[in-house]
Amino acid sequence: MSRFFSTKFDDLEPYVPGEQPGNIDNVLKLNTNENPFPPSKNVINALSEDEICRLLLYPDPYCTKLNETLAKELKVDFNNVYTGNGSDEVLAFCFYAFSDKGFAFPDLTYGFYSVFASLFNAETTIVPLRDDFSINIQDYDNITKNIIISNPNSPAGLFLPLDEIKKLIEKNKDRLIIIDEAYIDFGAETAVPLTKIYDNLLIIRTFSKSRSLAGGRLGAAIGNESLIRDLNTIKFSFNPYNVNRLTQIAGTEAIKDKEYFEYTRSEIIKAREYTKYEMKKLGFSVFDSMANFVFAGRHDKISGKEYFEKLRKKNVIVRYFNTPREKDYIRISIATIKEMQKFIDITMEILQEK
Amino acid sequence: MSRFFSTKFDDLEPYVPGEQPGNIDNVLKLNTNENPFPPSKNVINALSEDEICRLLLYPDPYCTKLNETLAKELKVDFNNVYTGNGSDEVLAFCFYAFSDKGFAFPDLTYGFYSVFASLFNAETTIVPLRDDFSINIQDYDNITKNIIISNPNSPAGLFLPLDEIKKLIEKNKDRLIIIDEAYIDFGAETAVPLTKIYDNLLIIRTFSKSRSLAGGRLGAAIGNESLIRDLNTIKFSFNPYNVNRLTQIAGTEAIKDKEYFEYTRSEIIKAREYTKYEMKKLGFSVFDSMANFVFAGRHDKISGKEYFEKLRKKNVIVRYFNTPREKDYIRISIATIKEMQKFIDITMEILQEK
Repeated sequence: MSRFFSTKFDDLEPYVPGEQPGNIDNVLKLNTNENPFPPSKNVINALSEDEICRLLLYPDPYCTKLNETLAKELKVDFNNVYTGNGSDEVLAFCFYAFSDKGFAFPDLTYGFYSVFASLFNAETTIVPLRDDFSINIQDYDNITKNIIISNPNSPAGLFLPLDEIKKLIEKNKDRLIIIDEAYIDFGAETAVPLTKIYDNLLIIRTFSKSRSLAGGRLGAAIGNESLIRDLNTIKFSFNPYNVNRLTQIAGTEAIKDKEYFEYTRSEIIKAREYTKYEMKKLGFSVFDSMANFVFAGRHDKISGKEYFEKLRKKNVIVRYFNTPREKDYIRISIATIKEMQKFIDITMEILQEK
Repeated sequence: MSRFFSTKFDDLEPYVPGEQPGNIDNVLKLNTNENPFPPSKNVINALSEDEICRLLLYPDPYCTKLNETLAKELKVDFNNVYTGNGSDEVLAFCFYAFSDKGFAFPDLTYGFYSVFASLFNAETTIVPLRDDFSINIQDYDNITKNIIISNPNSPAGLFLPLDEIKKLIEKNKDRLIIIDEAYIDFGAETAVPLTKIYDNLLIIRTFSKSRSLAGGRLGAAIGNESLIRDLNTIKFSFNPYNVNRLTQIAGTEAIKDKEYFEYTRSEIIKAREYTKYEMKKLGFSVFDSMANFVFAGRHDKISGKEYFEKLRKKNVIVRYFNTPREKDYIRISIATIKEMQKFIDITMEILQEK
């Protein structure tokens, strides 16, 4: 670090993102939960030469058309919606905006939560998941901090049913409950309708998973008008033009093409169920994921680490978390059925080589 | 604000960006210093259907190709370059990363500096410009804070010669000097070569002005490796994928098309000199701007405010800053010669109507 770097970052350890190889022509990339399908044809058509020429102009800082489209899709009002430069930026703003009470979250979840908290000096309480990697909402009873829960949660992909989330909000009306619904479109039930009832609920969404726009960077928050106003206060004090022109267009078109959205997510759900079934048949312990990834491991013949490394040698990249509770598993992003068949074939090869 | 918003933002007043009308078909938009020319043809060609399809993948978090290209162009090393989601984000990170000493800057400059400082609770010292709106570097002698100076500075467009900047750095080796070179390509001399000599110098650049990419959001910092490392520590703790895929490509191609860059900036310089000359002839007091805008006013017949309002009625949008030292002037972004001729014609109409 330089001699000018603030001492408040002495203990800051940045997030380590999953590997993003420059060339993936011969690689089966199943490590960062991207969508295997390209964006909607409507996105491709809308990013026209005319729109590229208009890059000379600043984007709309209020993301008017995008936010109107998203609000309509989610059946909320325009003032209940905020969009940012990927859900990471939206989450970062939340950790800064609502830092006074600090945050409680599971021991196993999106690894970035603890980094955001450290960056903005928010206190944290880490609440262990149950032995079966599920969330017990009663474990949050005696904590006064805000709560952030990913639903479905990573790495296992398990989800909290809506009535459990409702109970969590009801029981904790004086703290903010943030539900990170990055993976909600792959089978779990959204809590968005509850934002009309409760002013202490904020939902986070991303266009990186179910909308095939990881490279465009687009995330959103949905909640009570006053919470959205707070996020805008931070945005307009940090980077008013945080969502670029082309991404505002791409996001709008991605929402509007409902048919393609339904097609791609149902394909991914089918491929996930196929993967779970085949992995179990091969002797892996597999969690019942409702996300676009599967967490599997504890095989008699191969450790999580060895499995990860052998896959890497065969040009298959998955995610491996070397922590005491996760080290026996790997997390596999779900691609197309054809790609998942290839993944299963390679896994069989690896097991046969043992 | 919501009941969860941190009390540390009680006094935060967000930045108010210049008006960005949705439809500018009949508007002469001269208010936010955009480039009147579209991006390079190479940018348009590079943002192909294939690249749009690849939006399903996350961008390169290290912006490898873009940063390599920029480093080569600026004759520095890869490790001396950082790129972010617009120079506003780069500046925001600087105000957070280097907040311990606080910041000193001119009373009249980019209005966002004081907002960044407030957002990240950095102390500030405001140093008045001279009566002629120039910067006197001796005014910074007895301050211990970091210094941030825009060069050329807004609103007048005046610049500090390189030897003055060198003196400023030499005199203040224990504080960080940030030179915001947003407008450097329109005639002033860059301090980038000094980053090889001094570890307390950081240069900020933007692709929004001379590169016609305001809508793409791309900014950069150039400096000693340790300063760049600090910015990356913040980035990787905030939003590792902060520069989207298409903007990484657009920025790379914009740098590589040197011929177009030279053509557009020389056209803008010509149009600026034309505008200064004509405005003086019409009786306005005009600063000798080296940026892509002109600050003019103090006319016998019309106040700054009235001039601004009359232009607005004729569908010409310029920037008006209603502060004691700026209220007699308007700031006019420089467009094409043809558009500036139209601007002069409309100004003559307004003066004749008085």
